[in-house]
Amino acid sequence: MGIRFIFLWFSLFSSTISFAKARPKFPSLILRPEKLSLSTENELYKTKYFTQILDHFTYNPESYQTFQQRYLINDTFWGGTTEKNAPIFVYTGNEGDIEWFAQNTGFVYEIAPHFKALIVFIEHRFYGQSIPFGGDKKIAYENSSTLGYLSSTQALADYATLIIDLKKNLSAPDSPVVVFGGSYGGMLAAWFRLKYPHVTIGALASSSPILNFENITSPYSFNNIITQDFRSESENCYKVIKGSWKQIEDTANQPGGLDLLQKSFRICNSSIADSLANWLETAFIYTSMTDYPTPSNFLSPLPAYPVKQMCKAIDDPMGGNNTFAKLYGAANIYYNYSGDATCFDLNDNSDPHGLSEWTWQACTEMVMPTDGNTKESIFPASEWDYNDRASFCKNYFNVEPRPTWITTEFGGHDIYRVLKRFGSNIIFFNGLRDPWSGGGVLKNISKSIIAIVAKEGAHHVDLRFSTREDPEWLKDVRRREVKIITKWLSQYYHSLTHS
Amino acid sequence: MGIRFIFLWFSLFSSTISFAKARPKFPSLILRPEKLSLSTENELYKTKYFTQILDHFTYNPESYQTFQQRYLINDTFWGGTTEKNAPIFVYTGNEGDIEWFAQNTGFVYEIAPHFKALIVFIEHRFYGQSIPFGGDKKIAYENSSTLGYLSSTQALADYATLIIDLKKNLSAPDSPVVVFGGSYGGMLAAWFRLKYPHVTIGALASSSPILNFENITSPYSFNNIITQDFRSESENCYKVIKGSWKQIEDTANQPGGLDLLQKSFRICNSSIADSLANWLETAFIYTSMTDYPTPSNFLSPLPAYPVKQMCKAIDDPMGGNNTFAKLYGAANIYYNYSGDATCFDLNDNSDPHGLSEWTWQACTEMVMPTDGNTKESIFPASEWDYNDRASFCKNYFNVEPRPTWITTEFGGHDIYRVLKRFGSNIIFFNGLRDPWSGGGVLKNISKSIIAIVAKEGAHHVDLRFSTREDPEWLKDVRRREVKIITKWLSQYYHSLTHS
Repeated sequence: MGIRFIFLWFSLFSSTISFAKARPKFPSLILRPEKLSLSTENELYKTKYFTQILDHFTYNPESYQTFQQRYLINDTFWGGTTEKNAPIFVYTGNEGDIEWFAQNTGFVYEIAPHFKALIVFIEHRFYGQSIPFGGDKKIAYENSSTLGYLSSTQALADYATLIIDLKKNLSAPDSPVVVFGGSYGGMLAAWFRLKYPHVTIGALASSSPILNFENITSPYSFNNIITQDFRSESENCYKVIKGSWKQIEDTANQPGGLDLLQKSFRICNSSIADSLANWLETAFIYTSMTDYPTPSNFLSPLPAYPVKQMCKAIDDPMGGNNTFAKLYGAANIYYNYSGDATCFDLNDNSDPHGLSEWTWQACTEMVMPTDGNTKESIFPASEWDYNDRASFCKNYFNVEPRPTWITTEFGGHDIYRVLKRFGSNIIFFNGLRDPWSGGGVLKNISKSIIAIVAKEGAHHVDLRFSTREDPEWLKDVRRREVKIITKWLSQYYHSLTHS
Repeated sequence: MGIRFIFLWFSLFSSTISFAKARPKFPSLILRPEKLSLSTENELYKTKYFTQILDHFTYNPESYQTFQQRYLINDTFWGGTTEKNAPIFVYTGNEGDIEWFAQNTGFVYEIAPHFKALIVFIEHRFYGQSIPFGGDKKIAYENSSTLGYLSSTQALADYATLIIDLKKNLSAPDSPVVVFGGSYGGMLAAWFRLKYPHVTIGALASSSPILNFENITSPYSFNNIITQDFRSESENCYKVIKGSWKQIEDTANQPGGLDLLQKSFRICNSSIADSLANWLETAFIYTSMTDYPTPSNFLSPLPAYPVKQMCKAIDDPMGGNNTFAKLYGAANIYYNYSGDATCFDLNDNSDPHGLSEWTWQACTEMVMPTDGNTKESIFPASEWDYNDRASFCKNYFNVEPRPTWITTEFGGHDIYRVLKRFGSNIIFFNGLRDPWSGGGVLKNISKSIIAIVAKEGAHHVDLRFSTREDPEWLKDVRRREVKIITKWLSQYYHSLTHS
């Protein structure tokens, strides 16, 4: 049984590695969520649905169509309205099944009792069960006539509409709402605070690369950080990986070379020419993103500090000089830490968690230049080229990206100047081992728009369930976040009684 | 020749006066603009066009259609980019031909030289010449399939897109943009600052009733202020007008009564039953809105303090006891101050300035409850009833209003609390004689979200060209506005060199 690719969008594109035809690659913002072992799903939340309008911004007959938007709710800890308007913690769902995010955002569950908070996770339209057009994915995903309603602005308006209605139904008009999100969900949380300050009093935006648009962040930044992650473990590890791409290419071009590669990497099928490099690159990218200090349990388990583990496999003197064996050992950390897999299916395009529509978003507004590689990169040198993206999107969806839209709508340029005297109450968390951190807000913008940066941190590590093994810096991050949220709430309650 | 109604939307609805069938009435936010005599059009601006996208928020094939958006530009005073990134003053166009607004917003022209500012007036989509669907009004206005793209959020995104592109073309990335607007244009200016702080550093929102939605402002507020305007001139004036509605109704129901009314008011045609009261009410409403301290020159000229003049006509002892003669005298102030009209055509639905599509906006998102009348009202007692609006809109456009959308998208509830620690750099001007002032921001929200309130002021009087006769309070208002804008700019320039 091969390990599955859960990111369909990712496997749509081959690697930038030279022997593969260069096509755009859109690193996913989300992680493979960990299944929660602490609690059953029933204890974590109840599932509800809200009748949501299809198009908030136009008034065509089609705009008035509705769909069932799923949200998960847990009122176990809620102080309700009788007790001082207890807060509501809302997770602004990302590009995937919302149950995943609920099960992998332990931080919100762990702090809710202290704040007597109601917990709500709202699913993003077009993901999970929140599918317009009667819930029929075949129709909803068919083409741009239906997919066209999948956009970040619509999603934010969904959240505003749902939260306002929910508060009305709960008779909790004065309960403050704090929003949380990681990755794309973190971008949505930050933007939600900026655009809907009347709906939320503050946002914790974890690992949200809101500056990874247009030319604000270098297109080399993403892979530079991955390079640095591996290089920080050992120079040899970096050099072995960096040198491997040409070796793979050369081997593939030799008679019998594909067979050799297939054997070396235990590939189940034979059509590996376009996908082996991509498969390896994927492992390095996601291992960088998830370079957590404690073991994490995704679809397959990962050890603590998996980058270190990969480099250990590569640096192991027992491996001799066989680059493929070394790489195979590294890939096993990511794809087969449990040791159950007997071979790997590189072309497995299954998408059990419904992430596929990120490709649509990447082809319309989420044009994030991340796949440039300098000469120093652990991956082969390459340039970010918008035209590659545009032509893929034209072919695949017959849609034209709008690469300047996100900065037009949400800003990003000169953010430290623009938000210095505008807005308030946002925490931007970033872990510097996360390749997405290059597009994050890494300095305080104002007294209440705060950057928390963890040198050793990876992708939204702060939002994960705590463990006994959490290092002190991670505990500190979470303590700071709780302290800041506490301040927002007390300011809110003060203004409630003094206005 | 009869005086024309310029507000088609207004004449679509008969009055709330008892003998007329009760139908919704949507007081226009805009004024009959004054034709500028100071300068020729050619000196005021050059006309340009921008290729604008039809739908910013969705990615359907239709969304990608474009239209030519008109904007007016004057660079006579502009310091350009060589001289310290001179500012750009942008007027966010309202529901009408943008040339009107340019010709009636003298304030921007008068202060531009001092600031060495570029002047830009952007036309609102679906008005003037900025008509989607190939500029063909017949298609654009046909039904909700095309009109559906007329919305405030699309208009704001138009402004952001156009301004960003303009600055790029001018090579003026660091020129600060200040937005100005009056009435609905003022609402747009305020919302633009709140939603697009990365595009504008501050907004002067004059007479913008952003709180006249849902239940934030009393539905009686609008007519209460009109009542107060007339009552402040004389108790008799108020009583005569207040008593007249029943007298008109009784007369209309008597044999020969319609003839008598027609004669008394010099009506050109005879179908006056439904429209006479509306015609009179219109005169009182717009005279309240435009109760300026100096003569104003609309399509027909008005004297200074026109409410006072109307009441003079009513209170004139020479008028004896003939109520209709008194009312006729008052109506003449508004409809025939030049004295040229020989009779009045009450059913003239011509719309030479393209304001008609406000009806669409009033039927979708601009649900502003204004036409409640208490027992004390100068108009007959009546209740605001959302269902009246909804059923009109169903019949007229087959569209369902979304009465909670504006507050969902832009807020409004608890605004003093919500914006106390969020946002900055907005001036809300209101004149308390303006019936729209009841829905305005009348108290300072924070140190930089400022309310300027003029007890004697009417609808966006501050934005008008200055005259020698301007009273001291009006000069003061403008001086304060200039001072505040100066502060925004100097803060901006400071942050530009210190970030």
